[in-house]
Amino acid sequence: MSGCLTVVGLGPGDDRFLTPEARKALASAQALYGYGPYLDRVPLRDGQARNPSGNRVEGTRAQVALAHAASGAHVAMVSGGDPGVFAMAAAVCGEIEDGPEAWRALDLRIVPGITAMLAVAAKAGAPLGHDFCAISLSDNLKPWELIERRLDAAASGGFVIAFYNPISTARPWQLGQAFARLGHHLSPTTPVIFGRAVGRDDEAITVTTLDKAAETPADMATLVIVGSPETRVVTRNGQTPLVYSPRMTAPVSA
Amino acid sequence: MSGCLTVVGLGPGDDRFLTPEARKALASAQALYGYGPYLDRVPLRDGQARNPSGNRVEGTRAQVALAHAASGAHVAMVSGGDPGVFAMAAAVCGEIEDGPEAWRALDLRIVPGITAMLAVAAKAGAPLGHDFCAISLSDNLKPWELIERRLDAAASGGFVIAFYNPISTARPWQLGQAFARLGHHLSPTTPVIFGRAVGRDDEAITVTTLDKAAETPADMATLVIVGSPETRVVTRNGQTPLVYSPRMTAPVSA
Repeated sequence: MSGCLTVVGLGPGDDRFLTPEARKALASAQALYGYGPYLDRVPLRDGQARNPSGNRVEGTRAQVALAHAASGAHVAMVSGGDPGVFAMAAAVCGEIEDGPEAWRALDLRIVPGITAMLAVAAKAGAPLGHDFCAISLSDNLKPWELIERRLDAAASGGFVIAFYNPISTARPWQLGQAFARLGHHLSPTTPVIFGRAVGRDDEAITVTTLDKAAETPADMATLVIVGSPETRVVTRNGQTPLVYSPRMTAPVSA
Repeated sequence: MSGCLTVVGLGPGDDRFLTPEARKALASAQALYGYGPYLDRVPLRDGQARNPSGNRVEGTRAQVALAHAASGAHVAMVSGGDPGVFAMAAAVCGEIEDGPEAWRALDLRIVPGITAMLAVAAKAGAPLGHDFCAISLSDNLKPWELIERRLDAAASGGFVIAFYNPISTARPWQLGQAFARLGHHLSPTTPVIFGRAVGRDDEAITVTTLDKAAETPADMATLVIVGSPETRVVTRNGQTPLVYSPRMTAPVSA
């Protein structure tokens, strides 16, 4: 039997976002790998080995799973959200490039999932309704100067911006700095959305403005979306305001 | 009974990407609205009214569905991919902003879906593994000069770029022009992925380079991803090459 490795996106939060394709891949795997809390979201199945690991060992986790698959097993690697967005799929590809030739011959499949920015956007309205970008604010894996260059490029280009990995105890100042940087390009009233734990029971959406964004609490379970100059806020009685970015950015001549 | 409108993302292609949340929303609706080919993907259900429309009447379609929901019905609007990404959710929010006060009071829900760039990226490897942006190449709703400004900003910022709406019979030259524009910033060997009809039986992934991208066939069912200077291609015997953007963009000092 030849082995295979399937990298499976669970989507954010509970099972409501788990696609049939992902469910099937999880059910057919002989062994599961992944960050512990993500593995905990996969229903237990008899005879299926579970191999949880910590959240900072992506390279090692990928290597162990690839070696297991190369031995002939059907292996699944789970990832929160979408595995291709700041998650395990790139780590697996990187280890395949650097690893033994046999890893390139493996049957590798990647099953997409709902990534956090889509779930947060859906809760808030349609802030990603027009051109947008996604930036990881973690400077563990790239220099802060590059992040600032990308903030400048995104804001000056008029993109809506989604921040992944906005803040952590080890990276306390980066999010505030990013808001300050964007303040050089954008109006203080630019809408900013904080989406926390979306898809879980304790999910919370906060809509604020760029000048007040730095005061809004955030943590590792938060995704932040900063509007473009076109992004609009529609107030509603007794409901969170709707935030959306119109599909049309300039009048079309008749 | 008070009405509600749920905007439902079907994901790309067949049912494999349809989330439980989306399935539930479709099953509980009394009336369905949407672009005909998307509605055709929803299983028939007794007593459920189906209201297909053409693909250029988003505003009118949203108005009719909102009015129906405001009359007390449970209405679902279907959208391919994710409704929040260049799709129906922004159109619905826009009509709510401009419409009667009662529309703001409606119970509006948006159910996210797998958007095309995630599905194409998963088939190709992990090209969106690091900072990226999404740009609609349609100049029906914004001036071409703005698109060029965004191409310059995205490429000079080092973002991977996903093109939605890359080409159509009415817009034959924009994609080639976009590749030429990116050629001012990026190496001719920058990887470019064409993903066509992903999630359908006739799906096809083509991996090429920026200097040859303009010769590659594309149509309205195609999504294009242009790599960043960091994006890598891993060749594999007898398989499509893997394309990925590493999570790390600069060496981290020990």
